[in-house]
Formats: sequence, structure tokens, C-alpha cells
Amino acid sequence: MFLALLTYVGIVVFAASGALAGVRRRLELFGVCVVGLTAGLGGGIVRDLLLGVTPPVSFDRWTNATVALGASLLVFYVHPHLGRLRGVIGVYDAVGLGLFATTSASYALDLGASHFAAVLIGAVGAVGGGVLRDVLVNEVPLLLRRDLYAVPALLGALVVVVWAALGGPGDLGLLVGTVAATGLRLLGMWRDWNFPVSAVEPT
Amino acid sequence: MFLALLTYVGIVVFAASGALAGVRRRLELFGVCVVGLTAGLGGGIVRDLLLGVTPPVSFDRWTNATVALGASLLVFYVHPHLGRLRGVIGVYDAVGLGLFATTSASYALDLGASHFAAVLIGAVGAVGGGVLRDVLVNEVPLLLRRDLYAVPALLGALVVVVWAALGGPGDLGLLVGTVAATGLRLLGMWRDWNFPVSAVEPT
Amino acid sequence: MFLALLTYVGIVVFAASGALAGVRRRLELFGVCVVGLTAGLGGGIVRDLLLGVTPPVSFDRWTNATVALGASLLVFYVHPHLGRLRGVIGVYDAVGLGLFATTSASYALDLGASHFAAVLIGAVGAVGGGVLRDVLVNEVPLLLRRDLYAVPALLGALVVVVWAALGGPGDLGLLVGTVAATGLRLLGMWRDWNFPVSAVEPT
Repeated sequence: MFLALLTYVGIVVFAASGALAGVRRRLELFGVCVVGLTAGLGGGIVRDLLLGVTPPVSFDRWTNATVALGASLLVFYVHPHLGRLRGVIGVYDAVGLGLFATTSASYALDLGASHFAAVLIGAVGAVGGGVLRDVLVNEVPLLLRRDLYAVPALLGALVVVVWAALGGPGDLGLLVGTVAATGLRLLGMWRDWNFPVSAVEPT
Repeated sequence: MFLALLTYVGIVVFAASGALAGVRRRLELFGVCVVGLTAGLGGGIVRDLLLGVTPPVSFDRWTNATVALGASLLVFYVHPHLGRLRGVIGVYDAVGLGLFATTSASYALDLGASHFAAVLIGAVGAVGGGVLRDVLVNEVPLLLRRDLYAVPALLGALVVVVWAALGGPGDLGLLVGTVAATGLRLLGMWRDWNFPVSAVEPT
Repeated sequence: MFLALLTYVGIVVFAASGALAGVRRRLELFGVCVVGLTAGLGGGIVRDLLLGVTPPVSFDRWTNATVALGASLLVFYVHPHLGRLRGVIGVYDAVGLGLFATTSASYALDLGASHFAAVLIGAVGAVGGGVLRDVLVNEVPLLLRRDLYAVPALLGALVVVVWAALGGPGDLGLLVGTVAATGLRLLGMWRDWNFPVSAVEPT
């Protein structure tokens, strides 16, 4: 119950990030909703395709699309008033990242994926929606540009998989993994951690 | 038979739209054909992947690729003479949109997808080829920019699904859905209907 | 054994091409590795999704990702010294193209795909990683712009499929197909063969 609630929070946050990207591109209402739906549901759809779950869950469960659509509409109509929420949105985004990483990894394990596959699929589930969002609006994905974004996702998925391999209770593993991933992401944002750029430009 | 013929018309129209986009980008002959094939077959391939049909039908049925390739070659060599056909192409495109939406939805139902999934998969099958085309040539997808494009696709798929749920004969449902979707698309083009753009630009 | 070795050579070459594209885009280390992994493993992942192999092999076999990651790191740290290797990389890339085309086609046949599907899936497996790489870094795919790139891939896959249909020994077919595809690609590079561009720009 708590888990399902958190999943919807993740969808809302990612859908809002997509809708905001659409508004910035001056898209019409419908285009904004499409980018919002893509960002909110895309990670889970890619995860399902990698796991052979067809149709993907978001195509069967109407609540996912409805929640993502609602968040997109909200952003479209109230974004001028979102200014002060920007910092908070960064926090929600970090929570969504952690949550999608751990729930996707756990879902992959449940469907019989290997440990290695579960870690990768967890990370792809966490970052996939954002990549699709950026490809749609024709930008180099934030994943590639942003400081330390996918590493927390890998960490969260890894915690879940190791925890499960050690026989720990699943719900607690999800919680620990999410806290670890979200915490590392927030720490990276706060400390402005970055990976190096190559020193010499290729000719 | 009539249905199969219309499906090929849809592939031809979408392949031609892709090839034209490639010509505009000054691609070589082969690149033009690749974009044409992607636009003509992409929607069906995405639909099949979402439904777990592997390999996708267009990889198994050589006629689909052949028809799309022929349309691409035709556009490459005769596009300077297409000027006057532009308006007519808009009509064919609307027909293709309606047809792909209804046949994809019907196909999804046949494979046991839920009603909700069939509507979404119908719409994705109708717009998917165009999105892949635009991503390949590095543009923001028309789907996101164009007035009222995906709504007719959703309508067509919805008509097919509701019709089937009410127990109506399938062929007639396909026809009604296609007419509804194509009609709404043409009406939107004729009346220049648009969705609103957000009033305030985010800072 | 020899085949497995060559497969890893293919992954290394494509991963290096992706990492180099990332370095040129001034991405951070992590982004460079993501593009490298995408280019090195993407073709195989797309091939597996088209064939219904889930999770894709590269998600289950840790060696693939490790090799691609190693190649990406190498490029990131030593690319300033790669200048003289550029010509050689073109050769490796041609080898990778041929190898991915033939092994993907052979793999598709083993999984029961039709002859037609095996040829197409072989070509997609060979060019898919490069297309994903270019879409990620927001460029029109080289596949669409480059002289005579996908034709050798189609040839290599075709040789494998015809060879198998004639009952020839599989390993030899892989070798002949790879030599044919790589040879045609190198010949095209050497002779600077190009497809025509449409004479008239559409208005």
C-alpha cells in the first residue's frame, strides 16, 4: 500500500518533469501531455519490454496513465506559480529516481532475472523515462550531461539485489535502497559533485 | 482483402512522408529509404513489440518492406513533381492515421490485450512511425507540435474497442473507426484547430 | 572460441566509437561511458528485443558490459593519443559491422526466424548500436548520412542466410559473410562510393 503510493509519487514527479520540458519548448497542451506521459511511464515501459512483460503494465493499468496525465495538466496550467517549488521538485525527483531504481530491480528479480540483469534493469527503469523525454524534445539527455545521476540509480538497484541475495525482507530492502539512492543523489546535488570531462578535445 | 489493401495504402503514405523528410534533409538515396522504411513500418513494429509479437510482422512478411521501399524510391525520384499532390497527401496521411489506429487496436484485442491497452496500442501504432521518423532526422516529433494529430488516433482506436465490447461485427467497426478518426483529422486540418500553448513562459 | 573473441572485438570497436562521440560532445566521464555502452551493446539489445529474447543477452552476461565499459574508459583517458589510430579504427569498425551482421543473422536463424527476418535482423543488429549512439548525442544518425554503410551489413546477413539454406557448415558461412560485408565496406571507404542525393530540393 505504502509502496504503491510511493510508485505513484514517482510517476507524478517524472511526468511533471516531462510536462515542464514540453512547456519550455512551447508545445501545445497535447504535446505537453505526451511528453509528460512519456517521462512518467517510459522507464517502466522500457523495463517491461526488457523483461518480456507485454503489454507493459502501464498499458494495462489505467491508473498509471491517469496519474501521469493529471500531473501534466497541472503543470501546464499552474507552472507559472511553480517557481518557488523548483528546489522541492529536485528533491522529489531524487526520491523518484531512488524509488524507480529499487522497485524496478525488485520487479526484475521477481520475474526471474539474474542478479546482474536486475541491477541494470533497475537503473534503466530509473533513468529511461528521462532519456525518452529528452530524445522526444530533441535534447542531449540530461543523463549524459548531469552530474552523478545514474550512479545513485545503480546503487539503489544494487542494494536491493544484494539484500535479496542475503535473504533480507524485501520491503526493508526497498526502503534501504531507496534511501541510499536518493541520499546519494541529494548529496551530489548539494555538494555539486561532478565527473571529470576529458582534458583534451579530440581533433 | 479490402482491409489488406488499405493497410498497404497506409504503409505507402507513411513511407512517402518519411522519404520526403529524408529528401528535405538532403540525405543520400539509401538514407531516404531507411527513413521511409522506418516511417512506414515503425508504427507496426512498435505495436508488435508492445504486444510481444516477435519477430514483428514486418520482419517476417516481405511485402510490407517491399511496398515501403517502393514508395520511398518513388518519392526520391519524382518528388520534384509532387508539388500539386501535397494537399492530397495530407488526405492520404489522415486515412493512414485512421487505418493504423483501428487495425492496431483490433490486432491488440485479437491478441488478448485489455480494452484500455488496445486503445493505447492503437494510438501508438498510428503515431509511432511518424515519431521514429522525426527522431531519426533529428527533429522534435510532429506529434508534439502538430495540431490535433493524436486525438483522432485515440478516437479511432476507442471506436473499435467499444464496438467490439458491444459485440458489433469487426469489419464494420474498423470502417466506422477509420472514418471517425480520418474525419476528425481532416476536420481539424480544414478548421485549423489547435490546442492552446501555455500562456506564460517558465523562467 | 574464435567467434566469441571476434564478438568481443566488435563490442570493443563499437563502444570505442560511442565513447569518442561522447568525448567530442564534451560529456563527463559517466556520460561518455553511457554512450559507449549504448553503442557497444545497443545493436545486440535491439536484436534480442526483436527476437523476443528477454532479458537481452547483454543484461545477463556481465562480460559484454564489462568489455564495453573498459573500451569506453580507455578512450576517455587515452583519446588524445588516438590520432594515428583513426584509420585503423575505420578498419576495425568495418570488421565489427560485418561480424555483428553475420552473428545476428545466424542467431536469428537459430531462434527460428524466417530467412527474410534473419537478413533484416542481421542488418539491424549491425547498425542498431550506431543509430542509438547518434540519437543519444542528438545527431542525425551516420547510417543515414554515411556512404554505403548498411548495404554491406545486408550483404553479410544475406550470405549467412543463403549459406544456411544451402546447407553449408555454419562457421564457414559466418566467416564468408563477415569477409564479404567487411570487404565491401572497406572497398566503399577506399573508393569513396556514395549513393546519389536527390537533384532537386523540395520547396
